Amino acid sequence: MKVVFLFYPKMTALDAIGPHEILSRLPGAEVFRVAKQAGPVLSDSGLVLMAEYSISQVSQADILVIPGGGTATTLRDHPDVLQWIRDMHSQTMWTTSVCTGSLILGAAGVLSGVRATTHWTVLDRLSLWGALPVSDRVVEDGKIMTAAGVSAGIDMALTLTAKIAGPSFAQSMQLAIEYDPQPPFDVGSPEKAHPEILQILKSRMTASFEAASPS
Amino acid sequence: MKVVFLFYPKMTALDAIGPHEILSRLPGAEVFRVAKQAGPVLSDSGLVLMAEYSISQVSQADILVIPGGGTATTLRDHPDVLQWIRDMHSQTMWTTSVCTGSLILGAAGVLSGVRATTHWTVLDRLSLWGALPVSDRVVEDGKIMTAAGVSAGIDMALTLTAKIAGPSFAQSMQLAIEYDPQPPFDVGSPEKAHPEILQILKSRMTASFEAASPS
Repeated sequence: MKVVFLFYPKMTALDAIGPHEILSRLPGAEVFRVAKQAGPVLSDSGLVLMAEYSISQVSQADILVIPGGGTATTLRDHPDVLQWIRDMHSQTMWTTSVCTGSLILGAAGVLSGVRATTHWTVLDRLSLWGALPVSDRVVEDGKIMTAAGVSAGIDMALTLTAKIAGPSFAQSMQLAIEYDPQPPFDVGSPEKAHPEILQILKSRMTASFEAASPS
Repeated sequence: MKVVFLFYPKMTALDAIGPHEILSRLPGAEVFRVAKQAGPVLSDSGLVLMAEYSISQVSQADILVIPGGGTATTLRDHPDVLQWIRDMHSQTMWTTSVCTGSLILGAAGVLSGVRATTHWTVLDRLSLWGALPVSDRVVEDGKIMTAAGVSAGIDMALTLTAKIAGPSFAQSMQLAIEYDPQPPFDVGSPEKAHPEILQILKSRMTASFEAASPS
Protein backbone atom coordinates (compact mmCIF):
# COMPACT_ATOMS: atom_id res chain seq x y z
CA MET A 1 0.00 0.00 0.00
CA LYS A 2 1.91 2.97 -1.37
CA VAL A 3 0.75 6.24 0.19
CA VAL A 4 2.04 9.38 -1.50
CA PHE A 5 1.77 12.90 -0.06
CA LEU A 6 2.45 15.93 -2.23
CA PHE A 7 4.25 18.71 -0.33
CA TYR A 8 4.67 22.23 -1.74
CA PRO A 9 5.62 25.70 -0.48
CA LYS A 10 2.88 27.49 1.52
CA MET A 11 0.92 24.29 2.03
CA THR A 12 -1.03 24.02 5.28
CA ALA A 13 0.85 21.47 7.38
CA LEU A 14 -2.18 20.15 9.28
CA ASP A 15 -3.95 19.34 5.98
CA ALA A 16 -1.24 16.77 5.33
CA ILE A 17 -0.28 15.71 8.84
CA GLY A 18 -3.81 14.80 9.98
CA PRO A 19 -4.16 12.15 7.26
CA HIS A 20 -0.44 11.28 7.48
CA GLU A 21 -0.78 10.29 11.13
CA ILE A 22 -3.51 7.81 10.16
CA LEU A 23 -2.67 6.56 6.65
CA SER A 24 1.00 5.96 7.49
CA ARG A 25 -0.25 3.30 9.91
CA LEU A 26 -2.32 1.34 7.37
CA PRO A 27 -1.22 -2.30 7.28
CA GLY A 28 1.73 -2.56 4.90
CA ALA A 29 1.85 1.17 4.24
CA GLU A 30 4.90 2.57 2.48
CA VAL A 31 4.81 6.35 2.68
CA PHE A 32 6.40 8.74 0.22
CA ARG A 33 6.55 12.47 0.90
CA VAL A 34 7.07 14.08 -2.48
CA ALA A 35 7.70 17.63 -3.69
CA LYS A 36 8.61 19.21 -7.01
CA GLN A 37 12.15 18.96 -5.75
CA ALA A 38 13.16 16.79 -2.80
CA GLY A 39 14.18 18.69 0.32
CA PRO A 40 12.74 20.98 2.98
CA VAL A 41 9.33 22.52 2.28
CA LEU A 42 8.18 25.69 4.07
CA SER A 43 4.51 25.46 5.08
CA ASP A 44 2.23 28.49 5.57
CA SER A 45 2.64 28.45 9.35
CA GLY A 46 6.45 28.60 9.20
CA LEU A 47 6.93 24.91 9.93
CA VAL A 48 9.38 23.15 7.62
CA LEU A 49 8.55 19.60 6.53
CA MET A 50 10.90 17.30 4.68
CA ALA A 51 9.99 15.80 1.31
CA GLU A 52 12.30 12.86 0.73
CA TYR A 53 11.42 12.46 -2.94
CA SER A 54 11.01 14.61 -6.02
CA ILE A 55 8.06 14.07 -8.34
CA SER A 56 10.43 12.57 -10.90
CA GLN A 57 11.26 9.76 -8.46
CA VAL A 58 7.71 8.61 -7.70
CA SER A 59 5.41 7.51 -10.49
CA GLN A 60 2.76 5.39 -8.78
CA ALA A 61 0.56 5.52 -5.69
CA ASP A 62 -2.24 3.45 -4.23
CA ILE A 63 -3.34 6.51 -2.26
CA LEU A 64 -2.45 10.02 -3.37
CA VAL A 65 -3.02 12.86 -0.88
CA ILE A 66 -2.99 16.51 -1.97
CA PRO A 67 -3.09 18.98 0.93
CA GLY A 68 -4.36 22.54 0.62
CA GLY A 69 -2.90 25.90 1.44
CA GLY A 70 -3.61 29.61 1.20
CA THR A 71 -1.92 29.81 -2.17
CA ALA A 72 -2.76 26.35 -3.37
CA THR A 73 -3.65 27.36 -6.88
CA THR A 74 -0.25 28.87 -7.51
CA LEU A 75 0.46 25.28 -8.42
CA ARG A 76 -1.22 26.24 -11.67
CA ASP A 77 2.07 27.88 -12.45
CA HIS A 78 3.82 24.52 -12.16
CA PRO A 79 2.48 22.48 -15.09
CA ASP A 80 4.98 19.72 -14.40
CA VAL A 81 3.42 19.14 -10.97
CA LEU A 82 -0.08 19.18 -12.44
CA GLN A 83 0.99 16.72 -15.13
CA TRP A 84 2.48 14.50 -12.41
CA ILE A 85 -0.84 14.58 -10.52
CA ARG A 86 -2.72 13.67 -13.69
CA ASP A 87 -0.36 10.76 -14.40
CA MET A 88 -0.45 9.54 -10.80
CA HIS A 89 -4.25 9.77 -10.72
CA SER A 90 -4.55 7.50 -13.74
CA GLN A 91 -3.10 4.67 -11.63
CA THR A 92 -4.30 5.33 -8.07
CA MET A 93 -6.72 3.26 -6.06
CA TRP A 94 -7.70 6.48 -4.31
CA THR A 95 -6.98 10.10 -5.18
CA THR A 96 -7.65 12.37 -2.22
CA SER A 97 -7.38 15.98 -1.17
CA VAL A 98 -7.81 18.10 1.92
CA CYS A 99 -9.05 21.71 1.96
CA THR A 100 -7.98 23.66 -1.14
CA GLY A 101 -6.01 20.64 -2.31
CA SER A 102 -9.11 19.89 -4.39
CA LEU A 103 -8.51 23.11 -6.36
CA ILE A 104 -5.14 21.66 -7.28
CA LEU A 105 -6.85 18.44 -8.37
CA GLY A 106 -9.18 20.67 -10.36
CA ALA A 107 -6.30 22.52 -11.98
CA ALA A 108 -4.75 19.15 -12.83
CA GLY A 109 -7.92 18.39 -14.76
CA VAL A 110 -9.10 15.36 -12.83
CA LEU A 111 -12.32 16.78 -11.32
CA SER A 112 -14.35 17.34 -14.46
CA GLY A 113 -17.92 16.29 -13.64
CA VAL A 114 -16.80 15.04 -10.23
CA ARG A 115 -18.64 15.80 -6.97
CA ALA A 116 -16.07 17.37 -4.64
CA THR A 117 -15.59 19.67 -1.68
CA THR A 118 -12.97 22.14 -0.41
CA HIS A 119 -12.55 24.87 2.22
CA TRP A 120 -15.97 26.52 2.66
CA THR A 121 -14.66 29.98 1.71
CA VAL A 122 -13.83 28.88 -1.84
CA LEU A 123 -16.36 26.12 -2.45
CA ASP A 124 -17.88 27.87 -5.47
CA ARG A 125 -14.46 28.00 -7.16
CA LEU A 126 -14.53 24.24 -7.69
CA SER A 127 -16.94 24.74 -10.56
CA LEU A 128 -14.29 26.81 -12.37
CA TRP A 129 -12.55 23.49 -12.97
CA GLY A 130 -15.69 21.64 -13.96
CA ALA A 131 -16.25 19.98 -10.57
CA LEU A 132 -19.62 19.79 -8.87
CA PRO A 133 -19.22 21.55 -5.49
CA VAL A 134 -20.75 19.71 -2.54
CA SER A 135 -20.97 21.32 0.89
CA ASP A 136 -20.03 18.32 2.98
CA ARG A 137 -17.14 17.35 5.23
CA VAL A 138 -16.00 14.34 3.22
CA VAL A 139 -17.16 13.76 -0.36
CA GLU A 140 -16.60 10.54 -2.28
CA ASP A 141 -17.12 10.20 -6.02
CA GLY A 142 -15.70 7.08 -7.58
CA LYS A 143 -12.11 6.81 -6.45
CA ILE A 144 -11.82 10.51 -5.61
CA MET A 145 -12.29 11.49 -1.97
CA THR A 146 -12.11 15.18 -1.06
CA ALA A 147 -12.28 16.74 2.39
CA ALA A 148 -13.41 20.19 3.53
CA GLY A 149 -11.09 22.63 5.34
CA VAL A 150 -7.90 21.61 7.17
CA SER A 151 -9.14 19.49 10.11
CA ALA A 152 -11.57 17.59 7.84
CA GLY A 153 -8.56 15.63 6.58
CA ILE A 154 -8.70 13.60 9.79
CA ASP A 155 -12.31 12.56 9.15
CA MET A 156 -11.43 11.79 5.54
CA ALA A 157 -8.46 9.61 6.45
CA LEU A 158 -10.48 7.60 8.97
CA THR A 159 -13.27 7.14 6.41
CA LEU A 160 -10.73 5.97 3.84
CA THR A 161 -9.05 3.68 6.37
CA ALA A 162 -12.38 1.97 7.07
CA LYS A 163 -12.82 1.28 3.35
CA ILE A 164 -9.30 -0.04 2.90
CA ALA A 165 -8.56 -1.89 6.14
CA GLY A 166 -12.05 -2.40 7.54
CA PRO A 167 -14.12 -0.58 10.18
CA SER A 168 -12.50 -2.38 13.11
CA PHE A 169 -9.01 -1.24 12.13
CA ALA A 170 -10.26 2.29 11.47
CA GLN A 171 -11.87 2.34 14.89
CA SER A 172 -8.63 1.30 16.55
CA MET A 173 -6.87 4.17 14.75
CA GLN A 174 -9.54 6.60 15.89
CA LEU A 175 -9.09 5.43 19.47
CA ALA A 176 -5.29 5.50 19.14
CA ILE A 177 -5.38 9.20 18.22
CA GLU A 178 -8.16 9.66 20.81
CA TYR A 179 -10.36 11.35 18.24
CA ASP A 180 -13.38 12.11 20.38
CA PRO A 181 -13.51 15.81 19.53
CA GLN A 182 -14.86 18.33 21.99
CA PRO A 183 -14.36 21.68 20.24
CA PRO A 184 -14.67 24.57 22.70
CA PHE A 185 -17.20 26.31 20.43
CA ASP A 186 -19.89 25.16 18.03
CA VAL A 187 -18.77 27.39 15.18
CA GLY A 188 -16.63 25.15 12.99
CA SER A 189 -18.74 25.37 9.85
CA PRO A 190 -20.15 28.42 8.03
CA GLU A 191 -23.75 27.52 8.93
CA LYS A 192 -22.89 27.80 12.62
CA ALA A 193 -20.54 30.78 12.58
CA HIS A 194 -21.20 34.42 13.43
CA PRO A 195 -21.85 36.40 10.23
CA GLU A 196 -19.12 38.91 11.05
CA ILE A 197 -16.39 36.28 11.55
CA LEU A 198 -17.65 34.54 8.43
CA GLN A 199 -17.30 37.68 6.34
CA ILE A 200 -13.76 38.46 7.50
CA LEU A 201 -12.48 35.00 6.62
CA LYS A 202 -14.38 34.85 3.36
CA SER A 203 -12.95 38.18 2.16
CA ARG A 204 -9.39 37.19 3.08
CA MET A 205 -9.53 33.84 1.32
CA THR A 206 -11.39 35.09 -1.74
CA ALA A 207 -8.80 37.80 -2.28
CA SER A 208 -5.93 35.35 -2.12
CA PHE A 209 -7.58 33.06 -4.66
CA GLU A 210 -8.79 35.70 -7.09
CA ALA A 211 -5.41 35.87 -8.76
CA ALA A 212 -5.58 32.19 -9.53
CA SER A 213 -8.52 31.63 -11.84
CA PRO A 214 -8.30 29.15 -14.66
CA SER A 215 -6.61 30.73 -17.64
CA MET B 1 3.83 36.24 22.23
CA LYS B 2 6.66 33.72 22.10
CA VAL B 3 5.37 30.21 21.32
CA VAL B 4 7.92 27.43 21.76
CA PHE B 5 7.45 23.85 20.55
CA LEU B 6 9.78 21.10 21.74
CA PHE B 7 10.56 18.57 18.99
CA TYR B 8 12.32 15.27 19.70
CA PRO B 9 12.93 11.93 17.94
CA LYS B 10 9.89 9.59 17.83
CA MET B 11 7.49 12.40 18.72
CA THR B 12 4.00 12.14 17.25
CA ALA B 13 3.83 14.85 14.59
CA LEU B 14 0.09 15.54 14.89
CA ASP B 15 0.47 16.21 18.65
CA ALA B 16 2.57 19.23 17.73
CA ILE B 17 1.10 20.25 14.37
CA GLY B 18 -2.53 20.48 15.57
CA PRO B 19 -1.66 23.19 18.12
CA HIS B 20 1.02 24.66 15.82
CA GLU B 21 -1.55 25.37 13.12
CA ILE B 22 -3.56 27.40 15.65
CA LEU B 23 -1.06 28.96 18.06
CA SER B 24 1.26 30.13 15.28
CA ARG B 25 -1.60 32.41 14.20
CA LEU B 26 -2.08 34.12 17.57
CA PRO B 27 -1.77 37.90 17.20
CA GLY B 28 1.92 38.78 17.42
CA ALA B 29 3.03 35.15 17.68
CA GLU B 30 6.71 34.41 17.25
CA VAL B 31 7.16 30.66 16.92
CA PHE B 32 10.26 28.69 17.85
CA ARG B 33 10.63 25.02 17.01
CA VAL B 34 13.28 23.72 19.36
CA ALA B 35 15.09 20.40 19.76
CA LYS B 36 18.01 19.19 21.84
CA GLN B 37 20.05 19.97 18.76
CA ALA B 38 18.77 22.11 15.89
CA GLY B 39 18.06 20.22 12.67
CA PRO B 40 15.76 17.58 11.23
CA VAL B 41 13.73 15.53 13.71
CA LEU B 42 12.30 12.13 12.76
CA SER B 43 8.75 11.68 14.09
CA ASP B 44 7.19 8.29 14.87
CA SER B 45 5.28 8.16 11.56
CA GLY B 46 8.41 8.68 9.45
CA LEU B 47 7.75 12.35 8.78
CA VAL B 48 10.74 14.62 9.32
CA LEU B 49 10.12 18.03 10.88
CA MET B 50 12.69 20.79 11.13
CA ALA B 51 13.67 22.31 14.47
CA GLU B 52 15.34 25.63 13.77
CA TYR B 53 16.73 26.08 17.27
CA SER B 54 18.57 24.06 19.87
CA ILE B 55 17.49 24.24 23.51
CA SER B 56 20.61 26.24 24.28
CA GLN B 57 19.38 29.02 21.99
CA VAL B 58 15.92 29.50 23.51
CA SER B 59 15.54 30.36 27.17
CA GLN B 60 12.08 31.90 27.46
CA ALA B 61 8.54 31.22 26.23
CA ASP B 62 5.11 32.69 26.80
CA ILE B 63 3.60 29.40 25.68
CA LEU B 64 5.56 26.15 25.87
CA VAL B 65 4.13 23.12 24.01
CA ILE B 66 5.41 19.59 24.68
CA PRO B 67 4.04 16.99 22.25
CA GLY B 68 3.83 13.29 23.05
CA GLY B 69 5.08 10.19 21.35
CA GLY B 70 5.32 6.45 21.78
CA THR B 71 8.62 6.74 23.57
CA ALA B 72 8.07 10.07 25.20
CA THR B 73 9.57 9.12 28.50
CA THR B 74 12.89 8.21 26.95
CA LEU B 75 13.40 11.91 27.44
CA ARG B 76 14.13 10.90 30.97
CA ASP B 77 17.48 9.88 29.60
CA HIS B 78 18.13 13.45 28.52
CA PRO B 79 18.45 15.39 31.78
CA ASP B 80 19.55 18.50 29.91
CA VAL B 81 16.21 18.60 28.07
CA LEU B 82 14.29 18.06 31.32
CA GLN B 83 16.31 20.82 33.01
CA TRP B 84 15.52 23.09 30.06
CA ILE B 85 11.78 22.35 30.45
CA ARG B 86 12.00 23.10 34.17
CA ASP B 87 13.80 26.41 33.52
CA MET B 88 11.40 27.38 30.73
CA HIS B 89 8.38 26.52 32.87
CA SER B 90 9.53 28.86 35.63
CA GLN B 91 8.96 31.78 33.23
CA THR B 92 6.04 30.73 31.03
CA MET B 93 2.59 32.24 30.91
CA TRP B 94 1.33 28.80 29.88
CA THR B 95 3.02 25.42 29.97
CA THR B 96 1.15 22.90 27.83
CA SER B 97 1.36 19.33 26.61
CA VAL B 98 -0.43 16.99 24.25
CA CYS B 99 -0.81 13.24 24.75
CA THR B 100 2.17 11.67 26.52
CA GLY B 101 3.91 15.05 26.50
CA SER B 102 2.53 15.37 30.03
CA LEU B 103 4.69 12.42 31.08
CA ILE B 104 7.68 14.47 29.94
CA LEU B 105 6.42 17.40 32.00
CA GLY B 106 6.10 14.92 34.86
CA ALA B 107 9.65 13.68 34.37
CA ALA B 108 10.80 17.30 34.36
CA GLY B 109 9.27 17.62 37.81
CA VAL B 110 6.71 20.30 37.12
CA LEU B 111 3.52 18.29 37.69
CA SER B 112 3.85 17.56 41.39
CA GLY B 113 0.37 17.94 42.85
CA VAL B 114 -0.96 19.17 39.51
CA ARG B 115 -4.18 17.93 37.91
CA ALA B 116 -3.26 16.69 34.43
CA THR B 117 -4.23 14.35 31.62
CA THR B 118 -2.47 12.29 28.95
CA HIS B 119 -3.21 9.54 26.42
CA TRP B 120 -5.90 7.31 27.97
CA THR B 121 -3.72 4.18 27.78
CA VAL B 122 -1.18 5.59 30.23
CA LEU B 123 -3.30 7.92 32.35
CA ASP B 124 -2.43 6.11 35.58
CA ARG B 125 1.28 6.65 34.94
CA LEU B 126 0.91 10.37 35.61
CA SER B 127 0.76 9.61 39.32
CA LEU B 128 4.27 8.14 39.12
CA TRP B 129 5.44 11.73 38.76
CA GLY B 130 3.21 13.08 41.52
CA ALA B 131 0.53 14.43 39.20
CA LEU B 132 -3.19 13.95 39.81
CA PRO B 133 -4.56 12.09 36.75
CA VAL B 134 -7.80 13.49 35.34
CA SER B 135 -9.71 11.68 32.62
CA ASP B 136 -10.70 14.66 30.54
CA ARG B 137 -9.88 15.98 27.08
CA VAL B 138 -8.31 19.25 28.20
CA VAL B 139 -7.23 19.83 31.81
CA GLU B 140 -6.21 23.20 33.22
CA ASP B 141 -4.49 23.64 36.57
CA GLY B 142 -2.98 27.04 37.18
CA LYS B 143 -0.84 27.85 34.18
CA ILE B 144 -0.49 24.21 33.13
CA MET B 145 -2.82 22.97 30.40
CA THR B 146 -2.59 19.32 29.34
CA ALA B 147 -4.48 17.56 26.55
CA ALA B 148 -5.46 13.91 26.11
CA GLY B 149 -4.24 11.81 23.15
CA VAL B 150 -2.97 13.24 19.85
CA SER B 151 -6.03 14.95 18.33
CA ALA B 152 -6.95 16.54 21.69
CA GLY B 153 -4.18 19.05 21.06
CA ILE B 154 -6.50 20.85 18.64
CA ASP B 155 -9.16 21.29 21.34
CA MET B 156 -6.48 22.40 23.80
CA ALA B 157 -5.02 25.00 21.45
CA LEU B 158 -8.44 26.49 20.69
CA THR B 159 -9.24 26.61 24.43
CA LEU B 160 -5.92 28.34 25.09
CA THR B 161 -6.46 30.74 22.18
CA ALA B 162 -9.79 31.81 23.65
CA LYS B 163 -8.08 32.62 26.96
CA ILE B 164 -5.24 34.55 25.35
CA ALA B 165 -6.88 36.31 22.40
CA GLY B 166 -10.55 36.14 23.32
CA PRO B 167 -13.43 33.86 22.28
CA SER B 168 -14.15 35.74 19.07
CA PHE B 169 -10.62 35.25 17.76
CA ALA B 170 -10.62 31.61 18.84
CA GLN B 171 -13.91 31.10 17.00
CA SER B 172 -12.46 32.59 13.82
CA MET B 173 -9.52 30.17 14.11
CA GLN B 174 -11.91 27.25 14.60
CA LEU B 175 -13.84 28.28 11.50
CA ALA B 176 -10.63 28.87 9.54
CA ILE B 177 -9.54 25.27 10.13
CA GLU B 178 -13.17 24.19 9.64
CA TYR B 179 -13.13 22.32 12.92
CA ASP B 180 -16.65 20.93 12.91
CA PRO B 181 -15.62 17.32 13.45
CA GLN B 182 -17.71 14.46 12.14
CA PRO B 183 -15.72 11.37 13.07
CA PRO B 184 -16.92 8.33 11.10
CA PHE B 185 -17.31 6.30 14.32
CA ASP B 186 -18.24 7.12 17.90
CA VAL B 187 -15.29 5.27 19.43
CA GLY B 188 -12.70 7.96 20.06
CA SER B 189 -12.51 7.56 23.83
CA PRO B 190 -12.03 4.42 25.95
CA GLU B 191 -15.56 4.64 27.38
CA LYS B 192 -16.99 4.31 23.88
CA ALA B 193 -14.60 1.77 22.37
CA HIS B 194 -15.00 -1.97 21.87
CA PRO B 195 -13.31 -3.85 24.74
CA GLU B 196 -11.21 -5.90 22.34
CA ILE B 197 -9.79 -2.88 20.49
CA LEU B 198 -9.25 -1.20 23.84
CA GLN B 199 -7.22 -4.11 25.15
CA ILE B 200 -4.95 -4.35 22.10
CA LEU B 201 -4.01 -0.68 22.25
CA LYS B 202 -3.63 -0.66 26.01
CA SER B 203 -1.23 -3.63 25.97
CA ARG B 204 0.87 -2.12 23.21
CA MET B 205 1.22 1.28 24.87
CA THR B 206 1.75 -0.09 28.37
CA ALA B 207 4.59 -2.29 27.15
CA SER B 208 6.36 0.59 25.49
CA PHE B 209 6.15 2.72 28.63
CA GLU B 210 7.05 0.07 31.17
CA ALA B 211 10.75 0.58 30.53
CA ALA B 212 10.40 4.22 31.44
CA SER B 213 9.35 4.38 35.06
CA PRO B 214 10.75 7.01 37.38
CA SER B 215 14.11 5.89 38.72
